[in-house]
Amino acid sequence: VAAKPVTGIALGTGPEFDRIRAIAAALGDARALGDDCAVVAVGDTSIVLSTDASVEGVHFRRDWLTLEEIGWRSAAAALSDLAAAGADCIGVLAAVTVPTSSNEGELVSLMRGVAAAAQAAGGTVLGGDLTRGPAWSAAITVVGRAARPVSRAGARAGDTLWLTGQLGGARAALTAWTAGQIPTAAHRKSFAHPEPRLCAGRWLARHGATAMLDLSDGLGADAGHLAAASAVRLEIDLALVPVAPGVEAAAAAAGGDDYELLVAMPAEFSADDASALARECDLPLTRIGRIREGTGVALLLDGAAVEIAGYDHFA
Amino acid sequence: VAAKPVTGIALGTGPEFDRIRAIAAALGDARALGDDCAVVAVGDTSIVLSTDASVEGVHFRRDWLTLEEIGWRSAAAALSDLAAAGADCIGVLAAVTVPTSSNEGELVSLMRGVAAAAQAAGGTVLGGDLTRGPAWSAAITVVGRAARPVSRAGARAGDTLWLTGQLGGARAALTAWTAGQIPTAAHRKSFAHPEPRLCAGRWLARHGATAMLDLSDGLGADAGHLAAASAVRLEIDLALVPVAPGVEAAAAAAGGDDYELLVAMPAEFSADDASALARECDLPLTRIGRIREGTGVALLLDGAAVEIAGYDHFA
Repeated sequence: VAAKPVTGIALGTGPEFDRIRAIAAALGDARALGDDCAVVAVGDTSIVLSTDASVEGVHFRRDWLTLEEIGWRSAAAALSDLAAAGADCIGVLAAVTVPTSSNEGELVSLMRGVAAAAQAAGGTVLGGDLTRGPAWSAAITVVGRAARPVSRAGARAGDTLWLTGQLGGARAALTAWTAGQIPTAAHRKSFAHPEPRLCAGRWLARHGATAMLDLSDGLGADAGHLAAASAVRLEIDLALVPVAPGVEAAAAAAGGDDYELLVAMPAEFSADDASALARECDLPLTRIGRIREGTGVALLLDGAAVEIAGYDHFA
Repeated sequence: VAAKPVTGIALGTGPEFDRIRAIAAALGDARALGDDCAVVAVGDTSIVLSTDASVEGVHFRRDWLTLEEIGWRSAAAALSDLAAAGADCIGVLAAVTVPTSSNEGELVSLMRGVAAAAQAAGGTVLGGDLTRGPAWSAAITVVGRAARPVSRAGARAGDTLWLTGQLGGARAALTAWTAGQIPTAAHRKSFAHPEPRLCAGRWLARHGATAMLDLSDGLGADAGHLAAASAVRLEIDLALVPVAPGVEAAAAAAGGDDYELLVAMPAEFSADDASALARECDLPLTRIGRIREGTGVALLLDGAAVEIAGYDHFA
């Protein structure tokens, strides 16, 4: 049985991605470290893998979330990469770092959240590692399989651009917390309990998705990754982007942590098709733009270009 | 293609393992979080996976190792789990946390070490994640495949117990550093540049290994894991255990971080067979004891029982 890696994707712009490019260059393998998932061909199926670390003080704060929510959110962020590949979830591995001051029950709470997210995605906790360290952190590796993994590359001029769900809730919660306010229950839930879109990802892969990714860095930044990987230009009409109640469109496009799917579909994909997905996965799919020849991303509001910043861990 | 987890192993004693047991109980799945590797059956092959975090101040210090050595050692520790399963390496995923004060070149150095270890094992860097955090840390997930993965369970009364390489070098380096001394070059190399025993692991699996694990916690502690998983008693003659020059036998048995393989072989496995492995993998294999009915581990020196402590991250 042949098993070989078949990944390798160009990246968008920003300091984090400059770093990743430098790493890839140092490895002598520009294919690695780009796409949402690594793909390993095993016989006639593809195993897809992704790893994603959530660190206290960077991705979450203990006074914002319970440890069970931290576990769920850490796993959900990684599981979202499987969704973006159109994959089924087999399971997750969790490398958890706990402060020396932590107790047994806290660790069990975090792992309960990880396990709940894995189970909701149709998988299990396959394994893990436990170590002490200076802060809570969970590095989650997800393992899935796909008949035809979808990557960020493959969008073509003429394709249309679609988005699952709505944006901005998670970032609105973050904005409230950092301003010393209490987020609305709905915004808080978006941040604390994101739902990886595995049902939609699989459905879109089956129905011809040409390129897909999940929105972890924000619509503007992530659209840039898809454009770069596919060597096309994305035009997004911000007025079409569904936003969470109480959120401005520009803020929703700039905010990250949404874990919705951005997907390029063939021109013949219709609003009726989108309704079929909505019924099957209980999740709206909205057309928000188109793919053209060229490079980069145009965010348009009332016909005029809008500048927004994507979230960058290193900004 | 069926893809299902088939892991599930009992653990030895100690605070870390009590915690892991509590987690497993909380997950309602005692199968998870025990063996060196998780095993996922894909068609007629098995994908084996393991995740292992190395954290600054816990597993290494910056003044002991270069960042390239930290990268190598982090990956090698995880790759050693593939060796213990008798698996081939496909590749690794690296979730790296870097302090805000770090620079580009430092990150590239660490990843160069990770990539070198993956390549030496016959694999590549499949993917990764990069985040800032309070300290350097690398959570490495290894992906391999095996026709017949070997676990910690399966040793039977009448089997003989064997060990690759020699013990104690890594712990001797650690002891020197923590005493403010400079370790010997050989001891330092054992700690900084452990060699995962993939060649030996595959060979032993092919030649009938009934149970195998790698020595990360120390001979005494890890022998306890094998005994517990296999529901047998291990008798180890410390006089037979090969130790690094300048290391006492009891210290070698107590020390961790060796990443040698401890393996149970059928009674008919001979010294000539061990020589064949030594030639193929350029690595000695030494008989150090036997498997009996019962439970636990007896460490014998000149016929008398010896008490040693295994390394425990939470002790």
